[in-house]
Amino acid sequence: MVDTIKGKAVIFTQGGPTAVINASWVGVVQGLMLNSDIEEIWGAINGIDGIMSENFVDLKAQTAATLQDISYTPASQLRSTRKKPNADDNNKMLDVFQKHNIRYAFGIGGNDTSESLDIINDAAREREYELRVFHVAKTVDNDLMENDHTPGYGSAARYVANAFRGVNLDNQCFGGLYIGVCMGRHAGFLTAAAALGRTSPEDGPHLVYLPEVPFSLEQFAKDVEAVYKKHNRCVVAVSEGIEDDKHTPILQVLAKDGQLECDSHGNVQLSGTGALADSLVNYVKEHLEKAGVVKKLRARGDTFGYVQRSFPEQSPVDREEALGLGRFAASCAQSGNIDGSCAIVRVSDEPYTSEFKLVPLKNVAGKTRRMPEEFIAPTKNNVTEAFMRYGRPLIGEMSPIGLLDFSKKVKI
Amino acid sequence: MVDTIKGKAVIFTQGGPTAVINASWVGVVQGLMLNSDIEEIWGAINGIDGIMSENFVDLKAQTAATLQDISYTPASQLRSTRKKPNADDNNKMLDVFQKHNIRYAFGIGGNDTSESLDIINDAAREREYELRVFHVAKTVDNDLMENDHTPGYGSAARYVANAFRGVNLDNQCFGGLYIGVCMGRHAGFLTAAAALGRTSPEDGPHLVYLPEVPFSLEQFAKDVEAVYKKHNRCVVAVSEGIEDDKHTPILQVLAKDGQLECDSHGNVQLSGTGALADSLVNYVKEHLEKAGVVKKLRARGDTFGYVQRSFPEQSPVDREEALGLGRFAASCAQSGNIDGSCAIVRVSDEPYTSEFKLVPLKNVAGKTRRMPEEFIAPTKNNVTEAFMRYGRPLIGEMSPIGLLDFSKKVKI
Repeated sequence: MVDTIKGKAVIFTQGGPTAVINASWVGVVQGLMLNSDIEEIWGAINGIDGIMSENFVDLKAQTAATLQDISYTPASQLRSTRKKPNADDNNKMLDVFQKHNIRYAFGIGGNDTSESLDIINDAAREREYELRVFHVAKTVDNDLMENDHTPGYGSAARYVANAFRGVNLDNQCFGGLYIGVCMGRHAGFLTAAAALGRTSPEDGPHLVYLPEVPFSLEQFAKDVEAVYKKHNRCVVAVSEGIEDDKHTPILQVLAKDGQLECDSHGNVQLSGTGALADSLVNYVKEHLEKAGVVKKLRARGDTFGYVQRSFPEQSPVDREEALGLGRFAASCAQSGNIDGSCAIVRVSDEPYTSEFKLVPLKNVAGKTRRMPEEFIAPTKNNVTEAFMRYGRPLIGEMSPIGLLDFSKKVKI
Repeated sequence: MVDTIKGKAVIFTQGGPTAVINASWVGVVQGLMLNSDIEEIWGAINGIDGIMSENFVDLKAQTAATLQDISYTPASQLRSTRKKPNADDNNKMLDVFQKHNIRYAFGIGGNDTSESLDIINDAAREREYELRVFHVAKTVDNDLMENDHTPGYGSAARYVANAFRGVNLDNQCFGGLYIGVCMGRHAGFLTAAAALGRTSPEDGPHLVYLPEVPFSLEQFAKDVEAVYKKHNRCVVAVSEGIEDDKHTPILQVLAKDGQLECDSHGNVQLSGTGALADSLVNYVKEHLEKAGVVKKLRARGDTFGYVQRSFPEQSPVDREEALGLGRFAASCAQSGNIDGSCAIVRVSDEPYTSEFKLVPLKNVAGKTRRMPEEFIAPTKNNVTEAFMRYGRPLIGEMSPIGLLDFSKKVKI
C-alpha cells in the first residue's frame, strides 16, 4: 500500500541556466498531472526567493501549447537565483509550505540545490510536517555525483563541439594559433567536449587543458610548439578553471609573471571574461616568436562565455532525458513519503540507453564530480577514446563535414 | 553568336571564412560542368598564393559526394590568404595563367578580391591575353556595394540572432547587465542581427550600437540606466568597431579615460579580444553603482569572436544563394569575353525572393557599404523595423520559444 497525501506541489529552478532546464520542469508538470493527490502545481519565481516571498505562477493554468514551446526554450522561464538558504530562510519556506498545504517540492539545480533541499527536508521532519522533496539534476558542468551525466550538459557539449568544429576549419584557412576558453571551473567535461567535434586525426582541438590536471605554462608552450611544428597551426581548448600544481589560478600565475593586464590602478584584472584567453595567446606568441619557431605568429583567443549554456539548440538526447527525469521525479512523489535526488544512469554506449534512479539527497549535496582518470590522456593535454565514447551519444548527430581530397593535386 | 574560348578554369577563395564560402565554389564547379569549353577546373590552395606557386587541386577529380558534403562545411576547404597582390604578383599570376591556358578565373571574396581581380583583368588586356574574370561576393560583414546582402552574412546573422536569443533568456533569469560584442569593424549589419532573435518587445538586445553611429560613453551609460530602471536588466549588442565622434576607437577613448587595462609595461592593450566587452562592462557598472541605481550590478560581457563566422549551421537561404551565385558566375563565363562581380539583388521581402546580376568589378572594388540610415533608429541606439524586414528572411526559421504566462499568477 502506498501512502498518499493530498496537497500542492511547488517547482523551482536554481543556479545557472541550461538549454533544457525548462524541459525538466515541464516534465515534472507532465508527470504530476497523472497524480490525483496533487491539487495545484505552482512555479516559484526566482527559485527559493519566490517561495519565501510567495511569488508563484499557476502552472496548471498554462496552455499545453505554451508548455510545449517552453520545453524547447533555453534558460529558465521560472527564473533563477544563486541564493543559498540559511536557517531563517528554511523556516520561512516551511512556513509558506504549511500555510498553503504544499506537500511536494521539486528543485531543479546542481549540488547546492540538493544540499538546500536536504536541509529543508530535515527541518520539515523536525516539525513533523510531511513534505516530499525531490532534487532534479541539472548543470552544464556535468559535475554531480551519482549521475553518469546531467541534463544540460549534452546541449552545452553540443554547442562547444560545434563551435570547435567551426573554428578548427577557420584556423585551417590561415594557420596559426587559436585558443578557446570553455566553462567549467572545477570539472573539465565541457572543455573536453571540444574534442567531440573532430572529424579527422588532423583536426583541432589538438590540445585540451582540464582543471583536473595541474597546468604548467612552460609545458603548455612546449606542447603548442610541437603541434605547430607538425601542422603549421594549433587549436587549443582550455578550461576557465585551470590552476598550477599549487592550485593557483593560471591568471594569477600570469600576473606574477608580469604577463597579465592590469587596470588603471595597476590592479590585476581577474574577472574579465577575455583575460585568460588573451593572456595565454600573448604568452605563447612571445614564446614561439622568441624561440624562432615562427617570425610572426597569427594568434587568436576567444572566450565562449554565456552562449555555451544558453544557445537555443538542444541536443535531442539531452532534451529527452531532461523531460524524462522531470517525469521520473513526479512519479517518485507517488511512492510514499520519500525524498531524494533524481539522477541519470547509463545502461549502454552503443546503442546508447539510459535510465533514471532516485538516490539520497546527501549523496549529491555539496559534492563535486570531476573528470575520471580514464577520460584524461596520459600526456595530460588531451582526452581519451573512452571520453569520446562517453560524450558522443550525449550531443546528438552533427551536420556533415566534407574534406577536399588533396591527393588529387594537379601535377605541374 | 557567343564567343567561345577553350581553356582551364581556376577557382580561389580570399579573406575571412564564412559558413557558405565552400557552397559558393561548389556552385561554380557545378555550373562549369555544363560548359564544354572548360577543359579542367583547378582549385588554387590558399587563394592567390596558390596561383603564384602553382599549387592546385583538381576539382573535377573530387567525388560528387565529397563536393556535396563540402558545400555544407564552414570556412574554405581551398584555404585562404589575406595577401593583396602587387604589380609583380599580378604578372606572376598572368604568367601561370598563360603557361597552363587558364582562361577563366573565379575569385570568391570581399571588396579586396574584387579589386585584385580588376587589376589582373586590366593586366591581361594589356597582354592581349583573353581572360574571363569573375568576382563572387562573400563576406559576413555584408559590406559590399551593389549587393542587397552577401553570401555568408545570413548564416553569421543567424548565429548572432540565436546567440542573443539565448543570452537574453539567460539574462532574464538573474537580471543585470549583459554586453555582447559582435564582428563588423566598419559596417553594423552583423551587430544589428542581434535584434533578429527578439520574440517580444521586452526582449534584448535592448540597445544596439553600430559603427555607423558616433559612440558616446556618457550617452551609453544613460541609455543602459534607462533600460535597467525599466526592466531591472539590460542586454546590449555592440559592434567591435564603435568609434567616438572624432573616429577614435572606443577602446582608445577608454584608455585615455584611465578605464582600460594596460599590460605589464603600462601599455594599452587594444588587440585582446575580450578588452572592449570587459571595459564597457566595467565602465557602466561603475556608473550605475555610483549613481545609486543599483548597489552591486551583476554585469557580464562576452566577445563572440570567430565562432560567428564559422559556426557549422548554415542559414538555408544563405546556403541556396551561395550555391546559386556560384552557378550564376559559371554561367556568365559562357556569355562571351566578359568579366564582372556577381551580386545578389532582392526582388521582394514577402515572400522573399532574390536574383543575381553581373556588375562591373570597379563598382565593388575597394568600396565599403555601411548600414543605410533607414535601418538605424532615430535614437541611434537601436535598429528599425525596416532592418527587421530586411534581415528576417536571410537567417531562416528559428526554433520556437515559449514564454510563461505570468498573468496566471497565484493570488495569495
